[in-house]
Parts: sequence; C-alpha cells; structure tokens
Amino acid sequence: MLHNYPSQVRIVDVSPRDGLQNIKTTVPTEVKTTLIKKLCDAGIQHIEVASFVSPKWVPQMADAEAVLQQLPPREDTSYIVLTPNLRGFERAIDSGAKEVAIFAAASETFSQKNTNCSIAQSLERFEPIMLKAATLGVRVRGYTSCVLGCPYEGDVAVTEVVRVSKALIDMGCYEVSLGDTIGIGTPIKAREMIASVIKEVPAKKLALHFHDTRGQALANILACLEYGVANIDASVAGLGGCPYAAGASGNVSTEDVVYMLHGMGIETGIDLKKLVAVGHYISEQIAGPNHSKVGAVYK
Amino acid sequence: MLHNYPSQVRIVDVSPRDGLQNIKTTVPTEVKTTLIKKLCDAGIQHIEVASFVSPKWVPQMADAEAVLQQLPPREDTSYIVLTPNLRGFERAIDSGAKEVAIFAAASETFSQKNTNCSIAQSLERFEPIMLKAATLGVRVRGYTSCVLGCPYEGDVAVTEVVRVSKALIDMGCYEVSLGDTIGIGTPIKAREMIASVIKEVPAKKLALHFHDTRGQALANILACLEYGVANIDASVAGLGGCPYAAGASGNVSTEDVVYMLHGMGIETGIDLKKLVAVGHYISEQIAGPNHSKVGAVYK
Repeated sequence: MLHNYPSQVRIVDVSPRDGLQNIKTTVPTEVKTTLIKKLCDAGIQHIEVASFVSPKWVPQMADAEAVLQQLPPREDTSYIVLTPNLRGFERAIDSGAKEVAIFAAASETFSQKNTNCSIAQSLERFEPIMLKAATLGVRVRGYTSCVLGCPYEGDVAVTEVVRVSKALIDMGCYEVSLGDTIGIGTPIKAREMIASVIKEVPAKKLALHFHDTRGQALANILACLEYGVANIDASVAGLGGCPYAAGASGNVSTEDVVYMLHGMGIETGIDLKKLVAVGHYISEQIAGPNHSKVGAVYK
Repeated sequence: MLHNYPSQVRIVDVSPRDGLQNIKTTVPTEVKTTLIKKLCDAGIQHIEVASFVSPKWVPQMADAEAVLQQLPPREDTSYIVLTPNLRGFERAIDSGAKEVAIFAAASETFSQKNTNCSIAQSLERFEPIMLKAATLGVRVRGYTSCVLGCPYEGDVAVTEVVRVSKALIDMGCYEVSLGDTIGIGTPIKAREMIASVIKEVPAKKLALHFHDTRGQALANILACLEYGVANIDASVAGLGGCPYAAGASGNVSTEDVVYMLHGMGIETGIDLKKLVAVGHYISEQIAGPNHSKVGAVYK
C-alpha cells in the first residue's frame, strides 16, 4: 500500500485567535503577546494572532490592534489576523498587518447565522479586501468552514466545499484552509472531501483546520495527508472550545499533531519539548484545561 | 487510492479490567457488574470483566470471583478474564470463566518488570493453562504488549512482536491482541508493525489494543484497519490511566472508536447513544474524568 505523505508540513498555530476566542476568560494583551513569542521560540512560523471583528461580538479580541502593534517584527514569522470585512481589514492594515485571513462557509445557513449574509454575499464582500490587499502586497489566506458538516444543516455537499474554496483561490487567496468547524467528520468523509477539492485547487494551496470535538482530528488529518496536503492548522494545548457543544474541546492540539508528524518522519521545524512548555504556560495563565495528551505526558 | 477497510468490526470493551485496574479508586462489585450489564445493553458482546491476579498486587481486582459469579450468563456475550498464571486460571475456572486472556510482552525488560520472568518463561508458564483450557473447552485470548515501544527499552523490534504473537497463536490462542501499552506509537510505525505480523498471523486473528496516552490511538487504528484487522479493544469513557505517566489517559475511548467506525460505514452492532450514557454512568460512579470526546458532545 502506497502512502504519499509529504516530507515536510507547515503548521499554523491558531491558538491566540481561534483558541482564545472560544473561551470565556478575557486574556490580558501581555499574556497573548507572550504566548505568541513563546510559539515563535518553539519554531512556529505561522501564527493567527488576532481577529479584527467587532468587540461587541467578540470581546476577547477587543485588543487586536494592541496585540499586533506590540509584537516584534520577525523576518521568519508570519502573524496572521482574521478580517471578517473591509472595516476589519482597514483596522488590521492600520495596525501593521502583513497577512490577513478571510472567512467563508460551505453551508448557507452557517453563513447567514455566523456572518449575517449569504455565501455569495460574503464572497462579494471580500472583493474590495482582495483589491486593497493586492495593492498593498498583503497576503490573504482564505477559510472555508463547515467542510465536513454544519451545526444547522448537518451534511454539507462536497460540491459546495469545492465551489467556495475555488472561489477563494480564484479571487487571490494564496491558500484555503478547510475547516471542520464542529469536528464532526470521520476519515473516509475527510478523504473524499479532499479528493474532490484537489481536482480544482492544488494540494499545496490547501490547509487542514480540523477541530477535535469528537476526537477524530488526528485520524482525519492522517487520511488527508495521503493527498499531499502539507499545511495544518492547530492550537497549542488544544486551546479553545466549541460554541456548538458546551464543554467540548476545540481545535486539535498542536503538540499532538507535531508528535504524530515527527513520529512519521515528517519535518515541521518545531521543537516539541518547547511547544509542550508553551501549552502548559497558556493553560496556567487562563487557569483552563490543557487538552493536549502529549502535554499530559511530558510535563 | 484503495483502502480495504473491514465492513464490520468487533469491539472488546476492556474498561472493567484494564480501565478500573489503572485508577486509584476501588470500585464496589455492584458498580462493576452494573457497568458490565450496561455495556451489554449497549450492544457490546465482548467484555474483559476482571483479572485473576493476586489482590496483593492489584487490589482493584480483588473481587474478580464475585464479579464473574454475579454476572448473568448471556448467550450472546463473552466475559473475558485475565489470568496471568495457572493459579489465576484455576480461580477463574472455579468462578465459571468460559474465556480467559493471557499476557506476554514483546520487550524483555517489560516482561521481567511486569511479570517477573523472561518472555520465554512467560510463554512456558502458559502451556499448562493452554492444556487445561483445551480440555475444558475454554477459549484463550493472547496479548502481546509493548508492540510499539516499551517504557524501559524504548524501541521494540518488530521481529519480537511477530515472534511472540505467533507463539501465542501456535500454542492455541484464538486471537492475539497487539498492545501499544504506553500509547507511544504513530501511524507509520503501527502500519509497519501490522504489515509484519500479518505475514505470520492472519489479520482475522489479530486485535488492536491501543492506548491513547499521546492522542494517537484513533490515527493508529485507522492505519491498521487498512490491513483488514477487524477487532479493536477499547475502554468506555477512556476509563483508566497510564502507570508510566501520572495524569495521562489510558485506553482509547470506546465511544470515539465507535463514532469513527460508524462514520466510515463500518458496522459494530453497538448503540452509540447508549454507550455514551454508560460512559457517563461510570465516570460519575468513580467521580473521575470522562476521557471520551464524543461523550463530552452528546451529554
């Protein structure tokens, strides 16, 4: 049996944004910037550091400007910020953002409930962002959410995942991150989804953003690695939660992903020991659980 | 890419033995028998219910006789008991055991530390058990432990895993359960191990007994399912722990395994909703954490 795994994987740690956004505690700016610096020191070169969303909706991200401004520029590191609309994008640029992420859904109901507009409208809203980003030389990362299921609609058509992901690439995103937003997928479904998407978007332009809500994330990642996808989003300490299931866990833990990849001989450039220490640091700071199983072993 | 997954998987729930043995709390006999009955009601037909080991070493299993005697006989269910030696085997038979499990290691140091004898000696010790079992018509299941690594030796040679597993089959075990005792393996290693073992032991005579200590169990199971292995050991609520890493989790949770299998279209005969309720029952009884992520979602 042949398995064409990549020899190298790029990890995007999303804990400062997707992680901290989904916990109740509001974390001081200094703790956020320390977390980010520690992630850099562990060898993570791509970090989603904040979201320029309205503080009315997401108070945990109210200090997005401060976070971005206080981070030391690093040649080797990309600080990514989520910008849901043009206003957020402009705030991000004013704070010095060099890379942003935009967010679309493969489920019509999720798009309506989460961003208050249809999928088509959300893609239209991104057009002025893409234009400005191109002018400014700002890189844009796209997200397609609900790629393996929707909290409102249940099953999501793979054709919609393909269509939305291709649209994001066609409008200029350098990569699309495929989100199993509610961690509902299982390996065959994940594999079938990837197999369809790579017919329209090359594997090197895809990332996996799988939540571990039902413990399936690593198995799903393994299934998709066979297709040459070599970008994985994860969250140190599995930081975060699931807004659709109280008490459930959120993003897959970066430590557990890196442990698997290193065990498979796949390089990440990350120092796992240091990474585990970062997981313990942030868990202590927020007085919350460390969801990483690797973290529980290497204390 | 072709993946030859089995259409059906047989689950062996080991929570009453491997789970409860590895927690500090001593659980009343009645709670154990209630747990086992509830597992039956959820559709689990193979349950490791106790260990006939010296109560001096494992006080949690001191009521092995009482557990076995108090269980109602069920035509459709196999109650398995661990019997480390002839004395344990005889106690088990006197209590009405119809199926026992014997336990060998693929690591010489682990064998010495865990059973106080060499691998060769442990296999010799099983001979009188196999003889008596054959006479009595008692089924014997074998375990090979440390198949992906040893807490003392680190790496374990695959040739040793093959040799010990084949020896167990050759002496009359109907199946060998391959234990990643410390949950240290990753998917490629797991796959290479299985690929070697099935050259000597047919896949249908193999089971996977993977601990989730580092969060890798489901990914490792997925990797091995491709080889046609269709027997999986798991523990409801991920009950148990790891004697080699305080605070770490133990067996992979049955709920999370069943969720993955059902999502892949693989039948188990198990009612996942009922199984989740069993996980919550036992977690409440022992006032311990429910390690199942599926359990955390479907409360």
